[in-house]
Amino acid sequence: MTFHGRSLLGFSHASADGSSFEALNPATGDALPGTFYTASAADVDRAASLAAEASADFTSTSAAVRAAFLREVADELEASRPQIAARMPLETALPEGRANGELGRTIGQLRMFAALVEEGSWVDARLEPAQPDRAPVPKPDLRYMRISLGPVAVFGASNFPLAFSVAGGDTASAFAAGCPVVAISHYAHPGTGEIVGSAIQRAVKTVGLPEGTFSLLQGTGPDVGIPLVEHPAIKAVGFTGSRSGGLAIAERAAARKEPIPVFAEMSSINPIVVRPNALANRSEAMAMGLAGSVSLGVGQFCTNPGLVLLPAGNNAETFIGAFSRAMDESRGGTALHAGIAHAYESATQERAQHASVETLASTANNPGANRVNPWIFRTSVASLLADDSLTSEAFGPSTTIVTYADDDELLRVIKSLEGQLTMTVQADDADHPLDARIVAALQNRCGRLIMNGFPTGVEVCSAMVHGGPFPSTTDARSTSVGTGAIERFSRPFCFQDLPAAMLPDALKDGNPLGIWRLINGVRTRD
Amino acid sequence: MTFHGRSLLGFSHASADGSSFEALNPATGDALPGTFYTASAADVDRAASLAAEASADFTSTSAAVRAAFLREVADELEASRPQIAARMPLETALPEGRANGELGRTIGQLRMFAALVEEGSWVDARLEPAQPDRAPVPKPDLRYMRISLGPVAVFGASNFPLAFSVAGGDTASAFAAGCPVVAISHYAHPGTGEIVGSAIQRAVKTVGLPEGTFSLLQGTGPDVGIPLVEHPAIKAVGFTGSRSGGLAIAERAAARKEPIPVFAEMSSINPIVVRPNALANRSEAMAMGLAGSVSLGVGQFCTNPGLVLLPAGNNAETFIGAFSRAMDESRGGTALHAGIAHAYESATQERAQHASVETLASTANNPGANRVNPWIFRTSVASLLADDSLTSEAFGPSTTIVTYADDDELLRVIKSLEGQLTMTVQADDADHPLDARIVAALQNRCGRLIMNGFPTGVEVCSAMVHGGPFPSTTDARSTSVGTGAIERFSRPFCFQDLPAAMLPDALKDGNPLGIWRLINGVRTRD
Repeated sequence: MTFHGRSLLGFSHASADGSSFEALNPATGDALPGTFYTASAADVDRAASLAAEASADFTSTSAAVRAAFLREVADELEASRPQIAARMPLETALPEGRANGELGRTIGQLRMFAALVEEGSWVDARLEPAQPDRAPVPKPDLRYMRISLGPVAVFGASNFPLAFSVAGGDTASAFAAGCPVVAISHYAHPGTGEIVGSAIQRAVKTVGLPEGTFSLLQGTGPDVGIPLVEHPAIKAVGFTGSRSGGLAIAERAAARKEPIPVFAEMSSINPIVVRPNALANRSEAMAMGLAGSVSLGVGQFCTNPGLVLLPAGNNAETFIGAFSRAMDESRGGTALHAGIAHAYESATQERAQHASVETLASTANNPGANRVNPWIFRTSVASLLADDSLTSEAFGPSTTIVTYADDDELLRVIKSLEGQLTMTVQADDADHPLDARIVAALQNRCGRLIMNGFPTGVEVCSAMVHGGPFPSTTDARSTSVGTGAIERFSRPFCFQDLPAAMLPDALKDGNPLGIWRLINGVRTRD
Repeated sequence: MTFHGRSLLGFSHASADGSSFEALNPATGDALPGTFYTASAADVDRAASLAAEASADFTSTSAAVRAAFLREVADELEASRPQIAARMPLETALPEGRANGELGRTIGQLRMFAALVEEGSWVDARLEPAQPDRAPVPKPDLRYMRISLGPVAVFGASNFPLAFSVAGGDTASAFAAGCPVVAISHYAHPGTGEIVGSAIQRAVKTVGLPEGTFSLLQGTGPDVGIPLVEHPAIKAVGFTGSRSGGLAIAERAAARKEPIPVFAEMSSINPIVVRPNALANRSEAMAMGLAGSVSLGVGQFCTNPGLVLLPAGNNAETFIGAFSRAMDESRGGTALHAGIAHAYESATQERAQHASVETLASTANNPGANRVNPWIFRTSVASLLADDSLTSEAFGPSTTIVTYADDDELLRVIKSLEGQLTMTVQADDADHPLDARIVAALQNRCGRLIMNGFPTGVEVCSAMVHGGPFPSTTDARSTSVGTGAIERFSRPFCFQDLPAAMLPDALKDGNPLGIWRLINGVRTRD
């Protein structure tokens, strides 16, 4: 497997005259084959300008063409499976099984959006025909549908090198909405990015779409990302990563002459609230389940549970013992890259040294390049309420346990928390009905409320919400997983008194696409 | 008619110990009856805190209760019609007919949202039932619906003292979404605000809703608005007004510890593109129509056309002559308040003195307190492209005319424009088909594309979009008019494996509300 290492600017390769870098094997720290070249300012401009040129043509493609394109990308990725399964584990320290599984999910997402676009009702078409005789003033003919926002910048995530990266959910939903994409491959897995980006590039050619439909930028740090976000051709941004990274992007996007929306998925500790009967009845199973969720993927999931709230008492102590043992045995693993390993080391060391924090389990004696080890902490409600830093995310296999004396104390903790992707409740029949104030407070602080499960494992479907109040995302009114993700990259548009010949098919009389529409506010397929 | 002049904090009145102000009759500059008191920092905190307390209960009201509340507000406003029709013209210099018409629209909006909530499908319910036997992992039960964002701050607009103010579209759509509202009455019409706010307050009591469902703050300047936007209990903002005001609010909202969305409708010049055959065939009628649109409501509409693009030639000169005469005869009128009069005077003087601008018509000899007079300017494409200030909004009965040599020049102008609420094309049959590049560019820069009409007159219905790219709004993905406005104040939420008893009715098996839902991606009412 060889890599040219250059950014893909439409159908061309960028020149190789910028600074270069290599991918490092996180398990060894050694450089992997291939030299990659950071996109220059001219490359960024070229990619964004090509996207702007392609935008009108790509947006006006039919649903059939756009679905065919999404499926072609899926097929190209399937054809690249051997290369991806070989390279991705080297760049990420994730096992080959994960690479294959995540590729399946990525392909599934693309096909899901193909089906969504093909069915067509996602445009939310609304017709209010003219009433020329209405008094005192005639009613014009008004037709509404969602249209694309324009070119989208997608930042590949390090922790989902496929499903939230170059051809991940942001890219798939942007394409589905009719938006050209300029993707930035995460610097930690540029080889995987090149394989995936080349697959998309081939699909653009095969389906005969405009060149600027897709570009891939390679590079390290903000040198590539910030100029892209600031480029006038870019109309929205999708990002999955750190809080500091997401906030930097949001700040630049807001400071543009024309501010643009940023959909950044950033930081979440996904609290788990355990109720007394659940704790009494299935302490051991819950401890094992929690340990599995905390250590899954070496803890490098956005939905990793970083805070567990237990009712005080003997059962809590039993649970904590079982959980600590399970975590001690989980042994940690290798971080995706040195940046994550260092940040985790620093965050866990800080917590371990905090005056009001007790360390319950750690396996700090487990050495290796970029090795991250499980850390389990315990603190009090009073300390948690007094110090925000105890509820900040330590990205990796770590969690903090707190016992609450009663429901008022639990409520105070929940209300003090920042916005989360998920909240989970562990409750048995005898724990119901739950205090309505607690349920309302949980719902108020998250995007997904889970009963008797664990937050890791995000189903890709029409009913998923992977989003939530700040800082879990920059925009609680969005999801980055599931069909709802398409709404981020579209906006409502109204045609008033347009001649029939100029109307998009979705809005034509007679409903040639056979989609669900609102006509005078009534839903129909006629 | 007497006024207590104090803010309404839930069911109480604020104290009258803050700074006081009076409403001024813009036509005379004289103070109107009533002393009004600027809400103190404590009043702002009290209103926002009451809203936070009410939020969970108000959100969980049934559709029937929320619809009854919206209709009760409408009925209370109808009962207040005599007082509104008497006071509003004094505070705004708008005629009584406008007050009655706008009240009708405001009541209509409330009833439209009542019907929307009652029908219930707006929550976009999506069910993906569990598949416990799925391999390799079971699929959980996932149920999705839109829920309220929480308390909303609404800034009343000066130019729609009813329809975009205390009980206007922002408030109606926020209530419909289940959000408590803290409204700020515009300082120019505090008496109208008190009448309307009291009507809402009575409706809250009649329907038996929690006290904090609604509060009204009185005050001048940013003393009230900025602390409200910064209050942690507030979760979204609706604003209609100036660009500087909207941007100041957006900046403060983004700088909060928990940033919140701002839906500000700010600045738009609503360009009109005239095609050659339309100009040749109906020059006179178009000139009269345009004059009517520019001078409607003394030019104080967000959709006022401030830029007219004509194909160069003799027909353009004929049109300009007819339009200038019509505008000369329109005589202007009294501005809503001194701030608008001064801003308009300053903007038109600046443009009149611009080296590359010609003044075609003005009636500067038409004196009176806060009198604004029509101004028609003409400049060249080259000047327009060279100087952004020529396409900035001069809020009032003013427009600027530019002639374009050919379609390439027209395209350059359209592409150079900032985002607009509307774009209009005047085209006869022989002008079709329109250049696809021009249509794409127009669509790219606005929220509503109008053919052979004028942008003023915004229909309130399911298919309207009153929104558009920056700076026409802060969020192109929203509309502030029509049923789509409810989406601004809601967010998607997912319940995973929730016991049936805890599910909202919208998501229960058997569909007790009879709403349209997606089940495994298929739309059904079953």
